[in-house]
Amino acid sequence: MTEYITPIQRLIEQFRKLPGIGTKSAVRMAFSVLNWQGEEINEFADVLMSVKNEIHTCPVCNNLCDGERCEICSDESRDGSVICVVENPRDIMAIERIRDFKGLYHVLGGVLSPTSGIGPDCLNIKDLMTRLVSDSVKEIILATNPSVEGEATAMYLAKLIKPFGIKCSRLAYGIPVGGDLEYADEFTLRRAIEGRNTL
Amino acid sequence: MTEYITPIQRLIEQFRKLPGIGTKSAVRMAFSVLNWQGEEINEFADVLMSVKNEIHTCPVCNNLCDGERCEICSDESRDGSVICVVENPRDIMAIERIRDFKGLYHVLGGVLSPTSGIGPDCLNIKDLMTRLVSDSVKEIILATNPSVEGEATAMYLAKLIKPFGIKCSRLAYGIPVGGDLEYADEFTLRRAIEGRNTL
Repeated sequence: MTEYITPIQRLIEQFRKLPGIGTKSAVRMAFSVLNWQGEEINEFADVLMSVKNEIHTCPVCNNLCDGERCEICSDESRDGSVICVVENPRDIMAIERIRDFKGLYHVLGGVLSPTSGIGPDCLNIKDLMTRLVSDSVKEIILATNPSVEGEATAMYLAKLIKPFGIKCSRLAYGIPVGGDLEYADEFTLRRAIEGRNTL
Repeated sequence: MTEYITPIQRLIEQFRKLPGIGTKSAVRMAFSVLNWQGEEINEFADVLMSVKNEIHTCPVCNNLCDGERCEICSDESRDGSVICVVENPRDIMAIERIRDFKGLYHVLGGVLSPTSGIGPDCLNIKDLMTRLVSDSVKEIILATNPSVEGEATAMYLAKLIKPFGIKCSRLAYGIPVGGDLEYADEFTLRRAIEGRNTL
């Protein structure tokens, strides 16, 4: 006997499908669940099954939502003249956490990646263009990730947006706050010097 | 908006209940599940709900099993004269993995811990004594963890077993294979010197 009995093994396999979970963690989780009350396990299962049904994407910005529109789009106190374009809904949460940005968002649903066959039609770019036409948008902040694809997507969008005569900005590159110059990679450091600010 | 929408937040809370999972990992898991197919999610939920119903403890050794007896107790090729006493079913798997031990097991279901109110009656000690009387047991290997409680439990059991005239042994303490003397704690090192073997 070097494998766990079937019901446990099956649960271990399920946990292993979660991101960042290897066999050891999955085993620990499965045995931990065995110690839960039956009700707790059923609650977990219910929440799992309902998550997909209860969530859809906001028809305006493609953020995840459980109502008609997402919480941000339906918040009338937000500034509709600035739209921050992000790759996915988690990026919205990251920006919301700094509590500084009061504009709206637009979720692309990924980045352009010709090697993976992800072209402009795979992303929510048309919706963004529609918003530019109909809304009173004054600025687009391109907040895709600082990766090669994120950068390329931002450049692509900037070109598309230019004819609309709308201000288009990109997140600043530089050394992270609290970081250590000694360990900063050369690309980041070069960007930090290029983008240096006069004091 | 600094919290996730309710269905996601609820799923994050569930994942956070798993051992070793903090908020960041739980968020990652919840969003990963959102990308699964509906069927995959339902399968996960089914496996979760069935695990508790399909598993019970072996009436002989208290190992987890999904049949009448556990796989080890029902394997007639195993040596019934040696019983290895462990804290929990995971310890059985750890010992089985070395593929050396061919005897049977007995799961205590924990260790004595007066501070947490766990006395001898909370553990499967009576069952063990019954096995000592009725079975042709020649040796008991006490394989509780090398913790204070594990050690105390082993000592307690050794005293109980002594009157039966059965050989009673304890796992060896010492430096772990592949370990580094420099980083071994003093207790381990002391035990390694005390238990030194003549070459």
